[in-house]
Amino acid sequence: MTTAVKADTTTDLYPTRTGEPPRVIPREEPVVQGTPEQGPMDAQTLRGFDEKGYLTIDQLITPEELQLFKDELKRLAEDPEVKKDKRTVVEAKSNEVRSIFDIHRSNEIFKKIANDPRVVDRARQILGSDVYIHQSRINYKPGFVGKDFTWHSDFETWHAEDGMPSPRAVSISISLTDNYSFNGPLMIMPGSHKHYIVCQGETPEDNYKQSLVMQGAGVPDPGILTEFADKFGIDVLEGPAGGAIMFDSNCMHASNGNVTPYSRSNVFIVYNSVENTPVDPPYAAPSLRPDFLGSRDFTPAGNQG
Amino acid sequence: MTTAVKADTTTDLYPTRTGEPPRVIPREEPVVQGTPEQGPMDAQTLRGFDEKGYLTIDQLITPEELQLFKDELKRLAEDPEVKKDKRTVVEAKSNEVRSIFDIHRSNEIFKKIANDPRVVDRARQILGSDVYIHQSRINYKPGFVGKDFTWHSDFETWHAEDGMPSPRAVSISISLTDNYSFNGPLMIMPGSHKHYIVCQGETPEDNYKQSLVMQGAGVPDPGILTEFADKFGIDVLEGPAGGAIMFDSNCMHASNGNVTPYSRSNVFIVYNSVENTPVDPPYAAPSLRPDFLGSRDFTPAGNQG
Repeated sequence: MTTAVKADTTTDLYPTRTGEPPRVIPREEPVVQGTPEQGPMDAQTLRGFDEKGYLTIDQLITPEELQLFKDELKRLAEDPEVKKDKRTVVEAKSNEVRSIFDIHRSNEIFKKIANDPRVVDRARQILGSDVYIHQSRINYKPGFVGKDFTWHSDFETWHAEDGMPSPRAVSISISLTDNYSFNGPLMIMPGSHKHYIVCQGETPEDNYKQSLVMQGAGVPDPGILTEFADKFGIDVLEGPAGGAIMFDSNCMHASNGNVTPYSRSNVFIVYNSVENTPVDPPYAAPSLRPDFLGSRDFTPAGNQG
Repeated sequence: MTTAVKADTTTDLYPTRTGEPPRVIPREEPVVQGTPEQGPMDAQTLRGFDEKGYLTIDQLITPEELQLFKDELKRLAEDPEVKKDKRTVVEAKSNEVRSIFDIHRSNEIFKKIANDPRVVDRARQILGSDVYIHQSRINYKPGFVGKDFTWHSDFETWHAEDGMPSPRAVSISISLTDNYSFNGPLMIMPGSHKHYIVCQGETPEDNYKQSLVMQGAGVPDPGILTEFADKFGIDVLEGPAGGAIMFDSNCMHASNGNVTPYSRSNVFIVYNSVENTPVDPPYAAPSLRPDFLGSRDFTPAGNQG
């Protein structure tokens, strides 16, 4: 556990929620900070990630692991202790479990995959340093009633509310169900990660309690979003269970709701560079969010044993 | 104007909302009742419609008509008189116009296309008789906040609440905006139209006031919907503005919400066979819905001048 240092907002490259009108500023820092020589990804894969802000992996985990993860997912969703835990988000309308946070610490099965070289080495290569886990969760998107997520940059929130200085972080979403165009898959505006949208509004106290259910602060301006969609287009990330998507922390992304019978579930882990640890207080919120949303344990991932 | 006759529920082939458990019964009557010789569609197109329950037309209207319709759509959505008309449905959350009904009577531009041979002749050929307009509307699905429509058969509602005896009706949806997989396009379970899902529940008085905003009665059982999706699959109907989709009244269909900036709007017209006019009272509701939802003017379409 390292003690966070104070934010220097006078030199903040990514101001947001300051009361200024919304605008777009360039991302000053590189997207890929490692090299092809480090492996496991080749130059072309890294170049694609730099350009589009994401990459896909057709099969990251074995069929046996997939089954194991799905069984565990099911068990957790039905566990009354898990349902009432503060790290669990319950869907307002249906009372079904929507997300369970902090599963890399609370659950042995997901702790293992979060520290697995297949995942950690890729994150290290993209970020060009050791990495630690900033956040982890399982997302359920149940059939028939799955809720949408409106467009946002994760980094904008992590910067404003968690004190993360730079977008030197990468997320991996491991698919536990097939992603079709029709069951609310991840949508990304490719290339948007090289631009930062300064958002309006101020962050209310304990904003996270509301924002995990329905986004309030950190909502990009609709006019800017329309320009972004016209300029970058929208990629719909279909793909099979057992595959994965890695995406830059500053990608503009969203997902539609899901009225089909097919749920869409995934394991979601955020890796941050150990050279990019959060400051306290954060850049645009009264105080840091709880540790289960923005971890202050900066122990490098993959070094657990 | 013809006077409707009384429903004979003792011989009802499509019982629903009777208090019985949900179940599936076969559709006894043919889907296509006309012949290729009648034109304008060939044998292969008709066979495809019979098998899948829908067909698509790449370009139904000219670019000039498309522009005219879009301008009219915009004008209507901004007209305060239209907004407060009882035939207009306003989106609960955003207060934006969601649908305007009865546009084949209230609006000269849409009256013309609803009686155009390009549309009416196709409907006649499918249904094998003269046709009249049972319902018409413009649907807006605005960007960012467009609402979903959960799975349903239109015929189930038109039978229960409008007194339509048989599924001898066909809908056309003329696209006024591009339909992408990501902006809440129409989804159809191909082949589902040959099976009828008996729905649970009873129809409350004036159900339509609620059901236009959020479906209550006439909701198919989730277990049956899952079986249907596994058996028939889900077709996502992407396609350009100016194109159209015709689909059988008993197709199981739905659409997801729309968080993208791109609205999805269409003109929607329902043709019923003049040999299939509604009965009064209807099959499973206390009384008929208003005339703007289920017209009692059985004048054949295309015979207006």
